[in-house]
Amino acid sequence: MFTGVIEVRALVFDVFGTVVDWRSGVAAEAARLLGPAVDAPALADAWRGAYLPSMERVRRGEIGWTGLDALHRASLDELLPGFGAGDADEATRHELVLAWHRLDPWPDSVAGLTRLKARHVIASLSNGNVALLVDMAKHGGLPWDAVLSAELFGHYKPDPEAYDGAVRLLGATPERVLMVAAHVDDLAAARARGLRTAYVHRPTEFGTHGGPEKDPEADLNVRSLEELADALHC
Amino acid sequence: MFTGVIEVRALVFDVFGTVVDWRSGVAAEAARLLGPAVDAPALADAWRGAYLPSMERVRRGEIGWTGLDALHRASLDELLPGFGAGDADEATRHELVLAWHRLDPWPDSVAGLTRLKARHVIASLSNGNVALLVDMAKHGGLPWDAVLSAELFGHYKPDPEAYDGAVRLLGATPERVLMVAAHVDDLAAARARGLRTAYVHRPTEFGTHGGPEKDPEADLNVRSLEELADALHC
Repeated sequence: MFTGVIEVRALVFDVFGTVVDWRSGVAAEAARLLGPAVDAPALADAWRGAYLPSMERVRRGEIGWTGLDALHRASLDELLPGFGAGDADEATRHELVLAWHRLDPWPDSVAGLTRLKARHVIASLSNGNVALLVDMAKHGGLPWDAVLSAELFGHYKPDPEAYDGAVRLLGATPERVLMVAAHVDDLAAARARGLRTAYVHRPTEFGTHGGPEKDPEADLNVRSLEELADALHC
Repeated sequence: MFTGVIEVRALVFDVFGTVVDWRSGVAAEAARLLGPAVDAPALADAWRGAYLPSMERVRRGEIGWTGLDALHRASLDELLPGFGAGDADEATRHELVLAWHRLDPWPDSVAGLTRLKARHVIASLSNGNVALLVDMAKHGGLPWDAVLSAELFGHYKPDPEAYDGAVRLLGATPERVLMVAAHVDDLAAARARGLRTAYVHRPTEFGTHGGPEKDPEADLNVRSLEELADALHC
């Protein structure tokens, strides 16, 4: 259990689900762009469901490095016919991919990050590409000190290169970096590289459910980024 | 000449000399840490003078990728005996290298960047390593949307990989990225990769002098980042 005695230099954050609400944002844009005939929340879920398999192809080396925008586009093209939207035009598909660039933060995210930033370096550590993360930060007012992305390392989380690369770029040692995520697999991979971990329970990430209540392996368990700021005395 | 008609997505900034005043900051820290017997401004000049040759060794492939902190440290170790400070201890040398992490912005920098950020993506594009740039941004309140560094590309400016890499990470095309610098060679290299360029005249970068009044090849010539914000209608 985290005592607060360790001096954390930097906090690195998973973004989709941890800092922003991807499901509501993608569903709202799908409804706007595809109309009421399409089940937009189901499309959002299916699209997110294609996320891990599409990255796995990169992680296993089946295809070369491919950024998340391109993976999102390929998954979307596969999914649209099944949702009765196979006739969506190029401009619509492009706009839908950009929905992931303008997701709204959870209500506590900006306040929590702002408090944490006052005492620590805060950075994204996301599988989103840099341009996506920069757009998202401007859209939602996320006050990152640095935008770190799998793209910088050519390796998607949970590959060890992503965590090691973040520690290296931040000029830190692993035990002085705290990985913050709403996903236990992300945190387990970070711990395996020596990082500290904080689990954020996001009970509505998938609509009616989120991850487990707690991650018993994490140094910290919280329910919001404001609660994380409390726990770190920020 | 830049007409303002081109829609610039992102501005990327040289940092040392363009955004921050390295000479005053390094000289002040040298005076504090080494005492009055050392000619601190001359040490700052000599240290900065070692910057290009040390990077050249990396650029020519004589040594593998080496971050700026490590290059700074090696140059410092070579210079100190000549300044009568060869007996400086390890902690002092470490602190001196960190002086480059906490340089103060020029008086117009934060106000100018803040205005530019409201309408554009603003990012560093510096030969400083990421940790240095993050520390500097926190120290001086530089509101970067993204911290881009030669370190991310394994190539120091003016290698083309640095400019190409920044354009790629920002999801832009070269003609929609404006490189801002107080150094004509940096801008010439950016133009060779298709970027737009803005020259900032910093007349006291080297104490009693700076670069030329203008860069006739640049799209824009200004004397401060506030003037740049004016020119871009921010």
